[in-house]
Amino acid sequence: MQFFSDNAAAVHPRVWDAMRAADAPDAGYDGDALSRRMDEAFSVLFGTECTALWVATGTAANCLALAAMVPPHGGVVCHREAHVEMDEGGAPGFYTHGAKLMLAEGEGAKLTPESIRAVIDPIRNDVHQVQPHAITITQATEYGRVYSPDEVARIGSLAQGRGLGLHMDGARFANAVAHLGCHPAEVSAEAGVDVLTFGCVKNGGMNAEALVFFDMVLADVVRYRRKRAGHLQSKGRYLAAQVLAMIEDGLWLENARAANAAAQEIAAACKDRLFHPVEANEVFVVLSPVEQATLRAQGFDFYDWTAPAGAPGAVRLVTAWNSDPADVAALARAIAAL
Amino acid sequence: MQFFSDNAAAVHPRVWDAMRAADAPDAGYDGDALSRRMDEAFSVLFGTECTALWVATGTAANCLALAAMVPPHGGVVCHREAHVEMDEGGAPGFYTHGAKLMLAEGEGAKLTPESIRAVIDPIRNDVHQVQPHAITITQATEYGRVYSPDEVARIGSLAQGRGLGLHMDGARFANAVAHLGCHPAEVSAEAGVDVLTFGCVKNGGMNAEALVFFDMVLADVVRYRRKRAGHLQSKGRYLAAQVLAMIEDGLWLENARAANAAAQEIAAACKDRLFHPVEANEVFVVLSPVEQATLRAQGFDFYDWTAPAGAPGAVRLVTAWNSDPADVAALARAIAAL
Amino acid sequence: MQFFSDNAAAVHPRVWDAMRAADAPDAGYDGDALSRRMDEAFSVLFGTECTALWVATGTAANCLALAAMVPPHGGVVCHREAHVEMDEGGAPGFYTHGAKLMLAEGEGAKLTPESIRAVIDPIRNDVHQVQPHAITITQATEYGRVYSPDEVARIGSLAQGRGLGLHMDGARFANAVAHLGCHPAEVSAEAGVDVLTFGCVKNGGMNAEALVFFDMVLADVVRYRRKRAGHLQSKGRYLAAQVLAMIEDGLWLENARAANAAAQEIAAACKDRLFHPVEANEVFVVLSPVEQATLRAQGFDFYDWTAPAGAPGAVRLVTAWNSDPADVAALARAIAAL
Amino acid sequence: MQFFSDNAAAVHPRVWDAMRAADAPDAGYDGDALSRRMDEAFSVLFGTECTALWVATGTAANCLALAAMVPPHGGVVCHREAHVEMDEGGAPGFYTHGAKLMLAEGEGAKLTPESIRAVIDPIRNDVHQVQPHAITITQATEYGRVYSPDEVARIGSLAQGRGLGLHMDGARFANAVAHLGCHPAEVSAEAGVDVLTFGCVKNGGMNAEALVFFDMVLADVVRYRRKRAGHLQSKGRYLAAQVLAMIEDGLWLENARAANAAAQEIAAACKDRLFHPVEANEVFVVLSPVEQATLRAQGFDFYDWTAPAGAPGAVRLVTAWNSDPADVAALARAIAAL
Repeated sequence: MQFFSDNAAAVHPRVWDAMRAADAPDAGYDGDALSRRMDEAFSVLFGTECTALWVATGTAANCLALAAMVPPHGGVVCHREAHVEMDEGGAPGFYTHGAKLMLAEGEGAKLTPESIRAVIDPIRNDVHQVQPHAITITQATEYGRVYSPDEVARIGSLAQGRGLGLHMDGARFANAVAHLGCHPAEVSAEAGVDVLTFGCVKNGGMNAEALVFFDMVLADVVRYRRKRAGHLQSKGRYLAAQVLAMIEDGLWLENARAANAAAQEIAAACKDRLFHPVEANEVFVVLSPVEQATLRAQGFDFYDWTAPAGAPGAVRLVTAWNSDPADVAALARAIAAL
Repeated sequence: MQFFSDNAAAVHPRVWDAMRAADAPDAGYDGDALSRRMDEAFSVLFGTECTALWVATGTAANCLALAAMVPPHGGVVCHREAHVEMDEGGAPGFYTHGAKLMLAEGEGAKLTPESIRAVIDPIRNDVHQVQPHAITITQATEYGRVYSPDEVARIGSLAQGRGLGLHMDGARFANAVAHLGCHPAEVSAEAGVDVLTFGCVKNGGMNAEALVFFDMVLADVVRYRRKRAGHLQSKGRYLAAQVLAMIEDGLWLENARAANAAAQEIAAACKDRLFHPVEANEVFVVLSPVEQATLRAQGFDFYDWTAPAGAPGAVRLVTAWNSDPADVAALARAIAAL
Repeated sequence: MQFFSDNAAAVHPRVWDAMRAADAPDAGYDGDALSRRMDEAFSVLFGTECTALWVATGTAANCLALAAMVPPHGGVVCHREAHVEMDEGGAPGFYTHGAKLMLAEGEGAKLTPESIRAVIDPIRNDVHQVQPHAITITQATEYGRVYSPDEVARIGSLAQGRGLGLHMDGARFANAVAHLGCHPAEVSAEAGVDVLTFGCVKNGGMNAEALVFFDMVLADVVRYRRKRAGHLQSKGRYLAAQVLAMIEDGLWLENARAANAAAQEIAAACKDRLFHPVEANEVFVVLSPVEQATLRAQGFDFYDWTAPAGAPGAVRLVTAWNSDPADVAALARAIAAL
Repeated sequence: MQFFSDNAAAVHPRVWDAMRAADAPDAGYDGDALSRRMDEAFSVLFGTECTALWVATGTAANCLALAAMVPPHGGVVCHREAHVEMDEGGAPGFYTHGAKLMLAEGEGAKLTPESIRAVIDPIRNDVHQVQPHAITITQATEYGRVYSPDEVARIGSLAQGRGLGLHMDGARFANAVAHLGCHPAEVSAEAGVDVLTFGCVKNGGMNAEALVFFDMVLADVVRYRRKRAGHLQSKGRYLAAQVLAMIEDGLWLENARAANAAAQEIAAACKDRLFHPVEANEVFVVLSPVEQATLRAQGFDFYDWTAPAGAPGAVRLVTAWNSDPADVAALARAIAAL
């Protein structure tokens, strides 16, 4: 009974079906009918004209986006615990040719206009200091926290006022929208986001994310950069098929709702142990080493996590689109019984 | 009836089966059982210990290999018409951080020790000139030409003597080995190749190539660089599954033989029109514009190609693992009837 | 009696004087009075508004210019024998983050619109091929050949028509202008050049070249890139002093004329041995090994050079602003006497 | 009466003399007699065999050193307030091709083994996180603080134990050694430093620093990288002359002692206002805005500085090799009189 991560879960049957249906011959790279359908499909989904490109991983998607917004001599503001800073093996440095990640604070790995200004305001506008060119935020964050439309809009407004690009790492964008119950554009295009990494892999896809450009000029650069990064697959139709399967019939929200609901069920069983509010599909729980061992002995798998100050220990539990309801219920009971 | 390229052909059923079988939960990235089986599977295939990593595209595989062998201030000798020079959108410059491709000549896009020396011997060993650090050759070449074991060995010997790494772009390695009828190690490990891009995508795979390191030290760097390039997929088991399906039961040679045989059937119908010997699955044919139109009118699709001097026109015909025998026969007849 | 190169000649007394005069305290970097005078001084010299930055070397100046005009995924057309391709140790790859040098032909290392088109016209406008973004030409060329105003203008017109930037490597710009007897703007700003590397070091300076931007937007990027490359010296006033000493009282032309005259004197002594017309301060002479030895035995030093086809040998003779008239006369006599 | 910085001070007469003496013709680049004398001169100075290269700026010297020790996918531990992080315009990202600066804490901008371990110990040894490859420390620090031989040795020992390179940014190395009164090797070669940026510019030079390699293998890479960065000046003898003038007759220590003494004189006048101990040539003084204005009204120039918590304001006063004793005394009196 695995609660390690959503990033290695099985592929959803409807995604499989779409991939199989793509087996017919078609043009290579992104010249096929499915790839060519992506712009329109995302424009419908977001209710605004946009350009969408498939990319195999979130790391590549995030970094292609940043590289399109930031020159090599510039900087990107991100949270100190953002995926781009912590877990992408230096990919931002590679893709941007050495631009600087500028680390900002914020509760639950969420940036605020204030925490961003605390980083950029002290920067002298001279050539000795790296100048900021963009901001990247994560929706939902690495702690499963969700930005409201208003919170994004305030950051979008700051970005616009300072001439900075705004990227959203939406590896769990679906979980965030499912939690908010809002229109996806409310926390993206309408809030000032220029480029969105629209995650599919953690949500039932196999190996396709979508880069959605509300600032469509950026897409023209990224097309070249995607190829240059070895990310233009020759059988791209199998990636487009995954993405379209996810968005054209609402599967992205279905799957996210299932994962979120499972997280809520677990959270409900350990309210006083939570050290982050549960808004998406991640549950951060204070558990002593003995308690952890007890759960593991019952067959539950999960990662240790850094405990909050004063706590005896902690774990991270992640649910997925296909978390088995029986497993989830069993875990909830087991935690409650500790 | 498409003879455009092998790079967008359908996925082989046994590859599909292997991918479906990988749907069970397992560890993320390359920690799963399939990914961990790759080293051994390739060591068996090549009869020598090696390390193998999956990568989604040939461009990424080639460039990760080059970047591991060449410092940013160094150079790589390649053929003037090599894929890395012509068709990878500058990916070598990206991955190597600006190392230089040093362009050498050779009939049929094949390098020779002589053509390599013609490039590197005039380079003064001083800091004003970029120094060569590696050689990359393509097997089979962009013109469907195949290096014999001896030809590779002579280049391998030169590389070793000069302290240069040797990379082989084997996007169509299977076709080359099928043509030669030799052991795969004879044209790779035993001939001095340090790293091989072992192609699967053009040969019935979906989106997984293998980087095979006979110089295993290089793999340690590439593991970090693959992640840094956004090429470490979290559901890597679906890529490992493709690669293993290709090599563990001989599918790679079966498919390549089928493609090669189809190419031979076409070639036999137009011997006096060929401007490259047909050794793999590509057939380069002199056809006048009128003749091309005649074939297209019959439903055959293919790319125009640069005609040899004095010829009225030319096309490239590429067969694939799944070229329909009826289509192939029809094409052969149609060309013969011109 | 050295005729190796102009690049290691002594520093002109007026340059020394200007440097000494800069010893008074002033603001650091380029905030001092001399550095701040450069824009105006060059605007006067060229008769058009421009921005000028000092840079310690021609390699850095050239590459900063290229990097401002070409994105990392783009390309720059240059002559196959241009300094950026042959002698800068891969600096263009470093500064441009891996952009591609696209090698064109041309007699005497001079590009022509035709030779440029031969390189760029076959490039498909797709993401698989690197797209050209700029052209760089050398005035005078590596063979001491000079572009006329009309020749530059034709290239400038091509560049403008294709949306390409145009850079001029003017390491020996002074020699070219001295030869042409034209206004410096005629072969630069007025002919479509966007950025000029205005050479001083080979012409009596110590270690300061000027980057002159006729497209002043590019300078804004280069200011940051110059610092990022470690080329913003804290005592920049000593570089500005050199540059201003060179241009404010016509020293650049005086020195260039002296060097050119010395070259003409030598050339006149060996007209039938020349394999490049002598237009600047370089003389390429067919000399057999025995003849070379004869001259060296008389105390003349120079570099061997690649002989033209059929010739028994060749050398390059370079004069400088301070070539001793007696030495020059002696060399002319010695060659004539062979 | 300027106390802004030492980085724009005049050039010492003996440095001028050495430069003038270099005016005789010699080989270009670093083939001249002076450049070739540097290895031996530094080997004598440090009492151990080393290799030394001139570089025009500290930024370039630091970053060339880091790039030789750290692969693009690696990281370098530095202090949060180190020059490489704060004031080099992103040069480390450029030179290292995107390696990561890992920011550590420490009083007075000094790292300690403990503060370094606090950064590197939490890093998981997997490909998702950037791995440290080197440490860089500044001697004296950005706050004029000096590492004792033992303090450096403890960091050197940690570096060696973890397989990390150790670089020392010695822009004010002379001031540190003058303060310590030790042999220069005690805080460098003998303490585990692999490469030292030996500063001259702030200490009476014009535009030459020396990179001193105690790990001489690194120099072989840097020779190529220096050229590739456009830092191999053709008249390199004028840089070598500066460096040799500084070290061959003890000028480096004379100048540093003068600057340090001036700083001590000022410090003595405001002991209770200091917020960093004065060990080199920088004096950080708490001064209210009114007090600052009072001093400026008397003709003293200096930079504002971030005040320590609770203080009404602060300034940085920097002395140089040529600080006028009368000015220094006047400033000391003026502060004392506040």
